[in-house]
Amino acid sequence: MDSATISKPHERLAELLETELEGVNTLIRARMASRHAPRIPEVTAHLVEAGGKRLRPMLTLAAARLFDYPGDHHIKLAATVEFIHTATLLHDDVVDESGQRRGRPTANLLWDNKSSVLVGDYLFARSFQLMVETESLRVLDILANAAATIAEGEVLQMTAASNLATSEEVYLQVVRGKTAALFSAATEVGGVISGASEAQVQALFDFGDALGVAFQIADDLLDYQGDAAATGKNVGDDFRERKLTLPVIKAVAQATQEERAFWQRTIERGRQSEGDLEHALALMGKYGTLEATRADANRWADKAKAALDVLPDCEIRHLLSDLTDYVVSRLN
Amino acid sequence: MDSATISKPHERLAELLETELEGVNTLIRARMASRHAPRIPEVTAHLVEAGGKRLRPMLTLAAARLFDYPGDHHIKLAATVEFIHTATLLHDDVVDESGQRRGRPTANLLWDNKSSVLVGDYLFARSFQLMVETESLRVLDILANAAATIAEGEVLQMTAASNLATSEEVYLQVVRGKTAALFSAATEVGGVISGASEAQVQALFDFGDALGVAFQIADDLLDYQGDAAATGKNVGDDFRERKLTLPVIKAVAQATQEERAFWQRTIERGRQSEGDLEHALALMGKYGTLEATRADANRWADKAKAALDVLPDCEIRHLLSDLTDYVVSRLN
Repeated sequence: MDSATISKPHERLAELLETELEGVNTLIRARMASRHAPRIPEVTAHLVEAGGKRLRPMLTLAAARLFDYPGDHHIKLAATVEFIHTATLLHDDVVDESGQRRGRPTANLLWDNKSSVLVGDYLFARSFQLMVETESLRVLDILANAAATIAEGEVLQMTAASNLATSEEVYLQVVRGKTAALFSAATEVGGVISGASEAQVQALFDFGDALGVAFQIADDLLDYQGDAAATGKNVGDDFRERKLTLPVIKAVAQATQEERAFWQRTIERGRQSEGDLEHALALMGKYGTLEATRADANRWADKAKAALDVLPDCEIRHLLSDLTDYVVSRLN
Repeated sequence: MDSATISKPHERLAELLETELEGVNTLIRARMASRHAPRIPEVTAHLVEAGGKRLRPMLTLAAARLFDYPGDHHIKLAATVEFIHTATLLHDDVVDESGQRRGRPTANLLWDNKSSVLVGDYLFARSFQLMVETESLRVLDILANAAATIAEGEVLQMTAASNLATSEEVYLQVVRGKTAALFSAATEVGGVISGASEAQVQALFDFGDALGVAFQIADDLLDYQGDAAATGKNVGDDFRERKLTLPVIKAVAQATQEERAFWQRTIERGRQSEGDLEHALALMGKYGTLEATRADANRWADKAKAALDVLPDCEIRHLLSDLTDYVVSRLN
């Protein structure tokens, strides 16, 4: 494929799905509103309206388009998925008291913890109402299971984040909760609502799951090798926040006794000083863990693209394949 | 009715529903467990196992028993309702940063904010899975709407709590979110799952709603006139936490200019000093707002008992009526 093809596939998807996306935006605005509590749209507007890429709702719309679904439940499900995503972001923003004490930058600069929690709950409840309107028990089952995987992954991340014993397997579980569970639910419900065959529904799940894992691994890798100007993030944020991600997990697995002591001090005990990030990067360089992490991301991307094979051969399918390439192209 | 009848009706209900309640407890323990995140049962156990009265699940079981429901979905729904209640408690525990700064006692002494939020989310997700297992779209619709009312009421409470403009109407909306929405959903789904008639389902909703409102008004009144030894709460906690509840709302509505300035200082601006609680109580005495609040609670209790009329005449129904009397008997 040439470089134009992999330029911005999500923009081309957005063009192709423009009418449906407008429907999703209209529905989101309508359902965010609260007769009784004006604080709600105030808190959510900046998240929902902030010009996000609407990647997750687009996955649902794209899955439905693959099967020329004629109804409007996919609009509801796309809004559902975006509400769940936004609620998760709000709840992630809640700051540990211990976190504050360590002087970490707070993520909820604009509102207090309580607003983040309660408005997040409101969005969860709204998403729940929306999905019930589809009257599909299978869709409800998929989304209930995704919600449990997401919540379990979040708790796991909280407890495992700074624990050097965290394995690649636990990391994958966290990644599924954090990202892949909602991606795979988004694609799967799009297929279910459109009457896709079992094999196709499974393929849509597999695609969303692998795309989500690739996406999150790429994100974690970019934290260490990204271009701050392009990503808007500072290199090493995860290190400073003592988050064990794949590049570090791979380095810890091969660490000498002395190196292990370094990771214990900086990640487990959080005693960091100048030069530590540079040393961490040097250790990752020593064992080639950034390259190994990139290879993992690429493997997941390949898996995602392979899953697409049993789906109808059309422009949307090609764009989903290009989207997958794009997610990891930032790394290569 | 004699005093023995109104002694502890919830204990007699628990006796009558013992087998089902054991089923609920077993299910709760099974579904709390997390293969991946052992922190979860650790956080929830103290809430779920703390020997609560299991009032809400008992309402669901009682409603099903009224119609001799032979299945086991009522066990799932009772566990659902308890999970939602526990999740709400966990999220209520999250402390405002501003709240802490004012030196308010933190409610989440045992775990940090982040654990309360994420484990609460996990319980919500688990409750969602449980209710989907009943395969009743109507049940899902009822619980989705209850979830939205609860979340909206919580946000409303947060924004209205210290605002003197809060009317009795807004207070009622908060009370519905805080308490009555889950009571009414608990009774209603018990009827729906048992195949009760439309009139009976409506009656179960009305009963749960009015009982919940009476329960919360009683709770708010006891905060000002309770026996600290019996309730385990200190008189005036709501005043100190600047929460506008019915006794104060009624006093504010009749306040002179000078009295209004007192409420503005103590509730809106939170500048309280010694003697303020006593003065607040004197103002409530002057306008008889504790008596008026008690009369309101009794009216809601009467409404709840009246709703029971169309339900099958049996011991459970009489116990639900006694339970209603018991809720307000603490006040009389």
